[in-house]
Formats: sequence, C-alpha cells, structure tokens
Amino acid sequence: MPRITPLPLKNVKIDDPFWNRYIKLVREKVIPYQWEALNDRVPDASRSNCVKNFEIAAGRREGAFYGNAWQDSDLYKWLEAVAFSLENEPDSELERLADGAIELIGAAQQPDGYVNTYYTLKEPGHRFTNLQQGHELYCAGHMIEAAVAYYRATGKRQFLDIAERCADCVDNTFGVEDGKLRGYPGHQEIELALVKLSHTTGEERWLKLAEYFLRERGAKPYYFDLEQEKPGFSALWRSPAHFGGYSQSHTPPLEQKEAVGHAVRAMYMYSAMADLAIEGTPGYAEACETLYRDVTEHKMYITGAIGSTREGESFAGAYDLPGDTAYCETCASVGLMMFSRRMAALTGAAEYIDICERALYNTVLAGISLSGTEFFYVNPLEAEPERIARNPSLSHVEAVRQKWFDCSCCPTNITRTIMGLGEYIYAVSDEGIWVNLFCSGEAADGERRIKVRSEYPYGNRVSITLTGGRYKLFLRNPSNAPVIKMRKNAQTRDVITENGYIVLSDDWTGDLVEILMDIDPKPVYTNLKVQNNAGKAAVVRGPLVYCAEEADNGKNLGSYILPGKLVFEALTAPDGLPPETVALKTAVSRYADKTESLYSYTVPEIEDAELKLIPYFLWANRGVGEMRTQFIKQQPILPENR
Amino acid sequence: MPRITPLPLKNVKIDDPFWNRYIKLVREKVIPYQWEALNDRVPDASRSNCVKNFEIAAGRREGAFYGNAWQDSDLYKWLEAVAFSLENEPDSELERLADGAIELIGAAQQPDGYVNTYYTLKEPGHRFTNLQQGHELYCAGHMIEAAVAYYRATGKRQFLDIAERCADCVDNTFGVEDGKLRGYPGHQEIELALVKLSHTTGEERWLKLAEYFLRERGAKPYYFDLEQEKPGFSALWRSPAHFGGYSQSHTPPLEQKEAVGHAVRAMYMYSAMADLAIEGTPGYAEACETLYRDVTEHKMYITGAIGSTREGESFAGAYDLPGDTAYCETCASVGLMMFSRRMAALTGAAEYIDICERALYNTVLAGISLSGTEFFYVNPLEAEPERIARNPSLSHVEAVRQKWFDCSCCPTNITRTIMGLGEYIYAVSDEGIWVNLFCSGEAADGERRIKVRSEYPYGNRVSITLTGGRYKLFLRNPSNAPVIKMRKNAQTRDVITENGYIVLSDDWTGDLVEILMDIDPKPVYTNLKVQNNAGKAAVVRGPLVYCAEEADNGKNLGSYILPGKLVFEALTAPDGLPPETVALKTAVSRYADKTESLYSYTVPEIEDAELKLIPYFLWANRGVGEMRTQFIKQQPILPENR
Repeated sequence: MPRITPLPLKNVKIDDPFWNRYIKLVREKVIPYQWEALNDRVPDASRSNCVKNFEIAAGRREGAFYGNAWQDSDLYKWLEAVAFSLENEPDSELERLADGAIELIGAAQQPDGYVNTYYTLKEPGHRFTNLQQGHELYCAGHMIEAAVAYYRATGKRQFLDIAERCADCVDNTFGVEDGKLRGYPGHQEIELALVKLSHTTGEERWLKLAEYFLRERGAKPYYFDLEQEKPGFSALWRSPAHFGGYSQSHTPPLEQKEAVGHAVRAMYMYSAMADLAIEGTPGYAEACETLYRDVTEHKMYITGAIGSTREGESFAGAYDLPGDTAYCETCASVGLMMFSRRMAALTGAAEYIDICERALYNTVLAGISLSGTEFFYVNPLEAEPERIARNPSLSHVEAVRQKWFDCSCCPTNITRTIMGLGEYIYAVSDEGIWVNLFCSGEAADGERRIKVRSEYPYGNRVSITLTGGRYKLFLRNPSNAPVIKMRKNAQTRDVITENGYIVLSDDWTGDLVEILMDIDPKPVYTNLKVQNNAGKAAVVRGPLVYCAEEADNGKNLGSYILPGKLVFEALTAPDGLPPETVALKTAVSRYADKTESLYSYTVPEIEDAELKLIPYFLWANRGVGEMRTQFIKQQPILPENR
Repeated sequence: MPRITPLPLKNVKIDDPFWNRYIKLVREKVIPYQWEALNDRVPDASRSNCVKNFEIAAGRREGAFYGNAWQDSDLYKWLEAVAFSLENEPDSELERLADGAIELIGAAQQPDGYVNTYYTLKEPGHRFTNLQQGHELYCAGHMIEAAVAYYRATGKRQFLDIAERCADCVDNTFGVEDGKLRGYPGHQEIELALVKLSHTTGEERWLKLAEYFLRERGAKPYYFDLEQEKPGFSALWRSPAHFGGYSQSHTPPLEQKEAVGHAVRAMYMYSAMADLAIEGTPGYAEACETLYRDVTEHKMYITGAIGSTREGESFAGAYDLPGDTAYCETCASVGLMMFSRRMAALTGAAEYIDICERALYNTVLAGISLSGTEFFYVNPLEAEPERIARNPSLSHVEAVRQKWFDCSCCPTNITRTIMGLGEYIYAVSDEGIWVNLFCSGEAADGERRIKVRSEYPYGNRVSITLTGGRYKLFLRNPSNAPVIKMRKNAQTRDVITENGYIVLSDDWTGDLVEILMDIDPKPVYTNLKVQNNAGKAAVVRGPLVYCAEEADNGKNLGSYILPGKLVFEALTAPDGLPPETVALKTAVSRYADKTESLYSYTVPEIEDAELKLIPYFLWANRGVGEMRTQFIKQQPILPENR
C-alpha cells in the first residue's frame, strides 16, 4: 500500500465555524494562560514550578526542584503546541517567547546531552537508575516531539540540536551492546518521538533506537526487577502492584493481545508500534490490530474515553465501563486519537478515524472549558456533585474543571492536539488526498489543492472543491454520520465506499463534490455485557454524544425515560453555550419523585416530561450540577407482560 | 416508659426450623473452626497469630507480635460467642477450652490491669500514646463484653475480674481530673461495654466512665491532634484524611446529626449513646433518633447493609448506594442490629426491629457460608466475578467467601451475633413480654412463659402459647411482613397495632395467639435519588431480599426485565441450598444478547425468559458466578410514548 502521511500543518488552512472558536481560544488565551501556569503566575492554581525547575537546573536561579519526575514534559508539550500554532500562523512575539524557553532548556542540558531537571537537581548522579518511575525517557520523548514540531514550524535548528544531543545521550546509554543498559522506559513516549525524529532528520539511528525500546520491552530477565537490585536505586513513589501490566512491560509488545494497564502508556506505546508497522517492521501491524480491537470493541466508552478505573489510571476488563466511577483521562483519549490516526494510515481504513473523531469531539474537547482556562483530567459519563463531594471513592472525579493539576499532563496535551488538528483533518498519499475530519478550510499537497466547506459537526453538509490535476479524493464516510447523498458538479452520484472512504478519481479542475450526511439524533445501545447500561440508551447526533445537565433539566437525571419512539427537536444554544451549539429537546417520561422513603412497595408514578440535551463536551460550563449520558429507555413490551 | 431489656439467653430456648441449622453450625463447626484459625491451624487461611500473641505476652512462648493493633479483639469476640453458646447450652469441653484462653488472657495482663498484646510486645512503654489508632480501648471493650457474657453464662468470676482490673486501669488513666488523659478511643466500643459491665456488677463507676468517653469525644482542643504532638507518639498506619469524621470525633456525639465516617465505629458509638439514652442521660435519645433516621432513611441498602464506600469503610453521602462498588461490611450490619435493638428498647417501637431483622436475615447471614468456614467481609448488592477479577476499583469485593482475613473482625462478629440471637428475639418489661423476632422456641420471664411456633422467614404462620398470669404480649407486626390475620384462642381478632406492636393483655393460662403474615414476594423500589436504582426493582419476600445467581440463570443478569405484573411461583430449594429454602420463579423478559458490537443503533431485542431467585444471604454458596439484586423493571407506559 502506498504510504499515507499526515498533511503538514503549513499546508492546511482551517477556517471553520466550529473549530475557529477553539483555535482562536487556544492561540489567544490557552497558550498564554498555560505559560503563566508553567511560571506559577496563576492565582490559586496547583503549583507547577516547571519553568523554575529549568531555571534552577540552568544555574539561573536558586531553589529546589518541585513537582513530579515528569514535570519537564509540561513545558515540552506547551512548546509543541506553540510550534503547531506558529506553523499554522506565524506570531513573532510567541516565537520569541518560545525561543527563550528553548534557550533555557539548552542551558539546562548537560554536556553529554542529558536533560532532566528532576534528576539534575534532586538526584544528581542517579540518572537512568530508576527507569520504571523516573520518566527521563518520557520527558526526552516529549522534548523530541516539540523540537521536531518547532523545527518544522520555524526552520530553526536550535531545539532540534538539543533534541538530537539528548537522543544521542539516550542512544549511547541504551542498547544490547556491552556496557549499555538493556532498559526501556517506564512510561512509553520516546519511541514514537524517535520515529518522528528519524523522519525529520533522515537519521536511521533514531528509528533503530525506537525499535530497540519496543523489542527489549518485557524481555526476561525483567529489567524493572533487575534495576531495583542495583545500588543507587531509590523508589520515587509506591508503584502499582503488577507494574509490568501497568506499564505494558509484562510481555513483549509484539505478543500483547489485550489492552491492560495505564491507558496513556498503552496508547503511546501502541502508537509507536503502529509507526513501526507503517515502517514495515514485521508483526507490528497484526499486534496493533488486535490491541486496537480490544480497546475499541471492549473497553471504550461511547465518548471515546478509555481507562475506566482510577487505580493506576488503567483499563479494567472487557465490558467494565461504569459511568460514575469512570476515570477516562483526557490524555488517554488524546492517545487514542494518535493511535487511531496511525492505524488509518497503516490500513487506509476509515473506521479508525470514526473512533478518532469520537474521542476528539467528546472527551478531548470536554477536557477544556469554554473560557480556555480550566481543564478536566477525569471525564465521567455521569456526575452527581453531591455524591462526588461526599464519597471518597469518587474523589478522582471533579464536577468542575480545574485551573491546573499537581500532575498537569492533560491541559497541554489538549492544547497541542487542538493546534495540531490539521494532521488529523487530512492525509496524503501518492494516490491523492484523504479527507478524514470535516473542517472548513484548504489543503495543498503540491499542485493538488482542495477547499472544504463543512457544517460539521452541527450541520450535515460538506462540499469540496478540487483542483490540481489527476488524483484521487478519499472522502471519509463516517459510520457515525453516514453519507446519504452525494453530488459531483451538481450531479447526484451513488455513494460507494471502499474501506470506509468514498473514492473519487478525476482530473480535478475546480470540480465540486458535495455530500449530505445523516446526523439525525439517535439512541445508541451499549452491549448488554456492560450491565450498568442495560435498559438504557445514550443519545448521539453524528459524532457528538449528548448529555443532560441539571442546568436544563433539574436534578435526578436518572429518572428520565426515553420513549420507544424518540422525536428530537433541535434547539438553539442555551444561555452560556456558544451560539452555534445545537441542543436537543425531546418529549420523555419521568419517574415522579413523590416518595420520601428510601424503599417502597409503591410503583413509582410516571409523568410526562421534556428532556433537554447538550453536547457532552460542553458539560460543566454553566456551573456545578448533575450530568448524565445514559438514560433509561422504554422497553418494547412483550404481549405477555403487558 | 418502663425499661425494656433483652431476655437473658438462659431464659430463651430456640428450636426453630430456620435457626437450628445456624445454631448447630456455629456450635459444632464455626466455634471450633475459629479457634483453629485463631491458633493458625487452618491451611491457606490468612495468618491470625492471635492466640500466639497472648502466649508471647504471657511469657509462655518466644516470638514477635503479629497482626493489627486490634488483633486481640478476635479472641475476645470468639470468647463472647462461646459464652453465649454456653449460656444457651452447657458444654464442659468448650468451657474448659474457654477457661484456658481466659487464664491465658489473665497471664498476659499487666499488674495494673492493662491488657493489650500489641503494645505489650511491640511498643512497651507507649501504651495509650496513640489512642486514635492504637485500639487498646476497643480491645478492652470487647474483652469486657466477653467477660460479662462469660460470667453470666458460667457464674465464674475469673474473666470478670480480669475485665474489671482492665476497666480500673482505664478509669485510672482517663478522665477530666488532673494527671489523667482527657482522651477517648479512636475506635468506639468500650463505651457500650462499660454500660454492660456496670449493669452486671452494679458498679456506677463504669457507667460514668462510658459517659465520660462520649462527653469528651470531639471536644476542643481536639485530643487526636494533641496526642500527635506529644513525645512518644508514633503512627501505626496512614490514617484516613479527616480522621475526625472517620472516627465520629469531629464534633461531640450529642451534636452529631449525620452519620459519617467508618460505619462500624459509628454503630458502636450510636449503640452506646442509645444505652445512655436508656439510662436517661439527657439529649442522647434525640441525637440517636436523628442519627438512626439518617442511617436508615438515606444511607442503608435494602439488605440492611451500611457503609457504601471502601475508603475508610465509610458512609458516603445520602442516597449514595452503588451496588457493585458497595463496601457494606458485615460488622457494620452487626452494629446496626445492636443500635436497632437499643432504639427499640428506648422507644418501645417495632420499626427499629424491622431494620434489625433486615440486617440480620440479609447481610449478617450472608457473611457466613453454609459450610460455616468461609466468610464475607464485604457484601456487594451485585457481583460480576469477571469485572471483580480485572478491576482494582473492585479489589475490596470478593466473589467467594474467605477462610479468614488479615483484618478478621467479621467472622467472630457473626458468630457472637448468631449465638446471642436470643437477646434479639425477646425483650421484657414490667408490663410483659415483647416478641421481636419470630423464632420457634420458648421464653421465660419469671412465671411468665411463652412458647412460639414460627414458620418464619420462609413461612407466614406464627403461633404463641402464653401462660403465667396477667401481663401483656407485645407482638411485633413487621412492616416487611404485615400481619393480615390474627386469632386468639381460635377467635379471629382485629389487628390493632401500637408503635408497631400488637398488644394483647390477658390473664394468660395457656392461651393461643396465632398470626398470619403477608410474605408474598413483592418488588421494592428505591427512592429515585439513588439514581443507579432508578427504573429497577428488588424482590423481597417478607424480610428476605432475593437475588438472582448465575448458577440458576446464566450470565448477564442485568438483562432481565421484571414485567409490570409479577407473578411468583415458590420453588423448592435448588441443589446445594438447604432444603427449607424457598426459591422463587417468575416469568420475565430479557434483552437478547445478540450483538457483538460495543455500541449499536439497533434496539436490543427482547425475549421471554424465566428468572429464578434465591434469598440473597445464600448467594455464593454454589461456586463463583454473577449475582444481582436489582433488576430492570418494566415501566408502565404513558399513551403518548407507545
């Protein structure tokens, strides 16, 4: 199969009624806000100390390291978001700020290329002694990703040089050769970063190093056991029991068949495995496919959220998807987007983008407030603030987004994902242009140019104008919003789908392709093995999962009953939500809350009611209140049971 | 109001088709088994070391203390169960065994009366320095309870003397006087034990000491903070955050209005508060009533289980009663029985016994296997073994009963409760005899004698023969199984209830009172504020909550739908359950498990099915499998929604 690659951000212009809000928000508000947070200038926010740690490590400031062993990565992910932003649209002031931060990172780098403020400041001399917890390779990975992006955006080599010196240090330290450590990261991330670095620099060595980390992982004797026996090992925290499964190092990645452990680690590793599969490394395509199926067919919420238990921020077993105690880390859904995009590139199949889109429009966007300055780390599928406040089993859940976190991985991960959206919208191959997400704007691949006008996700019309000669348009036909009508130059055409794409080949000279999708609101039923959802339904409209909020419906949202035949009316946005928002209204029934007693023999009365729904990703933007995505669904009645 | 007191066990004879099985089991199997467990002679059981700790403390064995700071209490609760058993029915061999254990406790007692093997062996010189965690007063309380019971059963003073010396030591140590510690226990228990000791010995001092502990609790400055500042304080474990609420010492007990924190601590404290209320101490009756309402009207499962979150084995907020993550410690329901019995004695109202019975027949009995050698600590309302095995958020839940526990408070608590059942069955007052639980047998209060024949809980007929002159019969009319027909000497009488009791006054000379109760199986609906139960119903029959098990119904029990009109058929016991068991069968619907996909737009098909139910307390006696108590309930249909 011809290689499918993302279209670089500089070749993508976004001008979209839905996305402009977010891109403007991130560029004007979120990126500056996060810089303030990284510099501890946001009142009442969790302490970051991230920039200060670098300043101390660079000898520019007195003080002690503060934060987690992975604190550095917050700056790197912010820089990657900045790089994407600059690649989308130059901004000399922002670039100057980033240059300063990069210079600071360089100043904190050790002569041999090593960069990590935690070990430099807090455990000098102990570098790489605690790979399972130390996060040095994880941080290095995020630095490399940021450096690659910054080089691509600005053409400046300074950050890339820092990253290559760091990669050199890693390469000199790890490997099967005598005198090297046969270790691998406790938190995967550097593997996929090294693939990017290799692609950017043309240096084979980085690809081989990525391959080494994945091949060595989980080998016996088990490195994470061995390192604990070495002098100098000191634990940073109490690792979860079964660290092997938690960190997907229980067995070599190629042999893994089930998604287990920490969901973010898993996604980053699977993404790197997919990268190797794309490179043609044998075995990885099959392993990725198996793992992808396990995640998305057994362990994914309808919102594209994954990792259902807070213990170890981990996957639970198949079909174990509770709505209230859900963990569903925002970063894990970012990771699912990353994995999905690579699987689509590997296979040329659109179904992976369907999942990617689900994660993006629901969980990832839920991670950020409309104001851009508050974030969710945990994304429950239902929330009762009064329960949350009183029940320590729900202490991981927040009913309101937070300014920052002690472990603040999610905010910058959202930022870089939104600013890197272009890579998700389009892909290109020798054959042509792939339209994966529907987003108004333009894309150019050499002479090949397309212009998209999209009403998505609230509207159902997309039109594409194509120029630039003979090539194929691969237009995703989403399973969540199937194309029901297509026209080419105003002529109706049959909708024929290959691998989930409508493939149109022509010598394009300004031709117009128009599609109409079915985004009628629909109830969605969960597999009955997810027993807490039995007898219930969620409501979706295209890729958007809808939820009910207390602000629109009052309390006790669990009492609503969706009728057998659902008729939805689209509403204009409720106050406090963006004007483009399509809310929904439907006639329903509701159990009447008339009894005071805790248990009763009396059949609860049912009354007529109206249920208003908003897109899930917009919840908790209008104060604290209940939220729910799964509703009791009226059963069809069997005659004998009437 | 005249004082209502339990009828001493020696005045109660139980010969009951339901209870004989349990009493025989406990006497012949459980008590010997638990002695073996306390002596670490049960293969593959959690280590106890309890008896060894005493032997080491008594200087009879070399070795180190092992276990929790409250390890001693397991022996005390076992001895209390033995005492009850001996009071019910003498057994010289068992008495000899108990005498030996008591002699050992005496040998481990310090010259000033202090007994606690943890501090004696592990932290000599640090006694009473860590009241919040040390459990010395908790253990002393259980010793006192056991000693009182043993004295009552055997007339032997040795154990009572040990207990009084211990109480002396406590009394010399604690109080408001100069030179005394103004502390109180981290785990309440000694308060109610001191009330018993006072009643048994006639010594006012113990009652005053109990009052002191309850009055001082939660006073400012906060003792548990002060003791942490003292030299010699060393933490035994990481206390839960908000230790004050956890241990109900956040505010003085008299001012407490909401049940919070560790459920067992709460129940033991409320029981002592009720004891003081019965003594006439001002304020306690009102406080107890408020707390009782909060527990049973907002925070109790239908099984009489309480303490819904595993974090701190604690109460969550009102209406927060998840079925799957439930904690529901067996000991907490034992505590609810204790509290309820005292509230009934305080008020003369039967509703407290309704709750007591619910806890007994469902959660407490669920705590022990039919074989008598396995126990539940945690009592979920639904269980999916495959989820439990894979989800660390459910790691507190076991799908099979265990031989013993690292913290093994529950097994001996069940044992002492079953052997002390007589105190729950009857009560007496100057006015007459109170029949609280329905259990065949005899009771004597001086000349007043009654003989009961009961089919309860599986059957609905109870008859009582009364002799002994003029007095009142207070016959509980249970809300769970209301009396629908009554006859006195074969004459039908109207059922008139006062405070939940049918009160019959006569000059009894062998008269016969017969009642017939409504124990037809019924669906029970939970208050809609318990949102996870909305649209569902449990099935009860009299006091028994029923459940479905995989053994009878296969997997995916969440897919069953109870029809609008439920018709139950009583079944003989399934294989593996006691022959007297009444199982239920009903025609239902079921969502057909026909789709492989995780999410689907297709309305799940519904098929006819049959659901078999067994009493909840018998679950998990036939291998590992799913269990469920709440079922989807067919909604009545509103015309507009058909």
